[in-house]
Amino acid sequence: MASTWFTEQHTASGSAVGYRVREKLADEQTPFQHIEIYATTDWGNLMVIDGCTMLTTRDNFLYHEMMTHPALYTHAAPKDVVIIGGGDCGTLRQVLRHPEVGHVAQIDIDERVTRLAEQYFPELCESNADPRAQLLFDDGIKYMAEAAPDSLDVVIVDSTDPVGPAEGLFNTKFYASCCRALRAGGILVQQSESPLVLLDLIQSMQREMRAAGFTTTRTLPFPQPCYPTGWWSTTLARKGGDLTRFREHDAADKPFQTRYYNVDIHRAALAQPEFMRTALAV
Amino acid sequence: MASTWFTEQHTASGSAVGYRVREKLADEQTPFQHIEIYATTDWGNLMVIDGCTMLTTRDNFLYHEMMTHPALYTHAAPKDVVIIGGGDCGTLRQVLRHPEVGHVAQIDIDERVTRLAEQYFPELCESNADPRAQLLFDDGIKYMAEAAPDSLDVVIVDSTDPVGPAEGLFNTKFYASCCRALRAGGILVQQSESPLVLLDLIQSMQREMRAAGFTTTRTLPFPQPCYPTGWWSTTLARKGGDLTRFREHDAADKPFQTRYYNVDIHRAALAQPEFMRTALAV
Repeated sequence: MASTWFTEQHTASGSAVGYRVREKLADEQTPFQHIEIYATTDWGNLMVIDGCTMLTTRDNFLYHEMMTHPALYTHAAPKDVVIIGGGDCGTLRQVLRHPEVGHVAQIDIDERVTRLAEQYFPELCESNADPRAQLLFDDGIKYMAEAAPDSLDVVIVDSTDPVGPAEGLFNTKFYASCCRALRAGGILVQQSESPLVLLDLIQSMQREMRAAGFTTTRTLPFPQPCYPTGWWSTTLARKGGDLTRFREHDAADKPFQTRYYNVDIHRAALAQPEFMRTALAV
Repeated sequence: MASTWFTEQHTASGSAVGYRVREKLADEQTPFQHIEIYATTDWGNLMVIDGCTMLTTRDNFLYHEMMTHPALYTHAAPKDVVIIGGGDCGTLRQVLRHPEVGHVAQIDIDERVTRLAEQYFPELCESNADPRAQLLFDDGIKYMAEAAPDSLDVVIVDSTDPVGPAEGLFNTKFYASCCRALRAGGILVQQSESPLVLLDLIQSMQREMRAAGFTTTRTLPFPQPCYPTGWWSTTLARKGGDLTRFREHDAADKPFQTRYYNVDIHRAALAQPEFMRTALAV
């Protein structure tokens, strides 16, 4: 059998990442975007949105664990959480593993992402019926603009790249909505692209987060094979309080299993590669 | 201008990494392998051997820094160093930055790799005339088998994958040669592929290193965009002594600039992702 490959050629970085695929399982044009699902030979299922790889069955644990556990173990008592985007429900599942969490609202603009995840990534959706979870299909920018002040502990922005539908999630106005909605000590978490090729975006995100009222910011790098360069990052911003200390004892004693995150990896992710330390020094 | 891409489709992992290229600069069949050099649009020059990406100008600093500084700052006083492979001279350059090092022999079987590196990656070869450096073009397996016992402090195996010419560098017999040639406290360093897809190779390397006489082993993961999955590792084996402590004060005060490595990153690289911790527990 001749093998077929799906390869994302990432124009901005001049680099490509691809997977050997068996067949295409779904292909939908929604009102918001073009979603494709492939069965790969070695990476389980693969979701592609507007030509960009979103996740594979095999390596999504890296992203989902690093988008959630560092922030949740940094906050003293994360009770109310909002996820903007995150329609595949993988971030939601990780958040719900924390017993301190009382309520999580997930606001993704495109219900079809969730319906296709239920079908092709069922393990990511296994917690969707948790009574603490609320799945909304709506505009996340509007949701945060209308959120009650001082009502949230953690806001996680689990979106596509800062072009198209997600563009409005990467600016001072949106960050100001998040900052107002967070309680003191609250944390905003946002996926922040490849540290190697998009360091200028990370610099600008950190600058705009501080301009929006956050008192401290920190970018944590982690491996993510399915994204351009295979190296990704999450940027945290806090409304008062530190981002370099966390509940180490609780993280070491976590009441759930992980595949990447642990207390040592959390400490390790706070280390800044020399070129990031220089570029992000305030 | 239509863009052209060089994409390495990695059969073993069913994943691919590619670069947008402007032109092919060199194409040679040597007695040992097929070497190609491309000019890319965003990653500088790209060297490909037998269809596998070896390095790019833009991201080789990650690999070369992580193949050298952790071992050299773990050893108390690294004086005599051998590099097996490493024909592009990038590892040699990093080793020579350590003032404690008195002699480095680099043994690569294929002189053409070095000659092409001098032409297309001149920055990696800038230290080749250092009086402490000795460039040999010979069989590294034979070199280590004939090395005087207790004559070396650090042996760095900077080879291609464990197929073809490099196959004999990944087994107990070769490791036993290295162990015999190292002084007490000496360290063997070897590139050990992607922790996500080749964990069984890493397990087997650690097992064979210990069977060969090394008393402790440790695998350090690091990002490396140009290799399959973008996530790579180096495995260290020591002839007596620890691999989790290092000369932190010296590393913090290093008399040379780096782009990835620093004292925090060294500590961070010792953290084991949860799935590695479980799989590599002895």
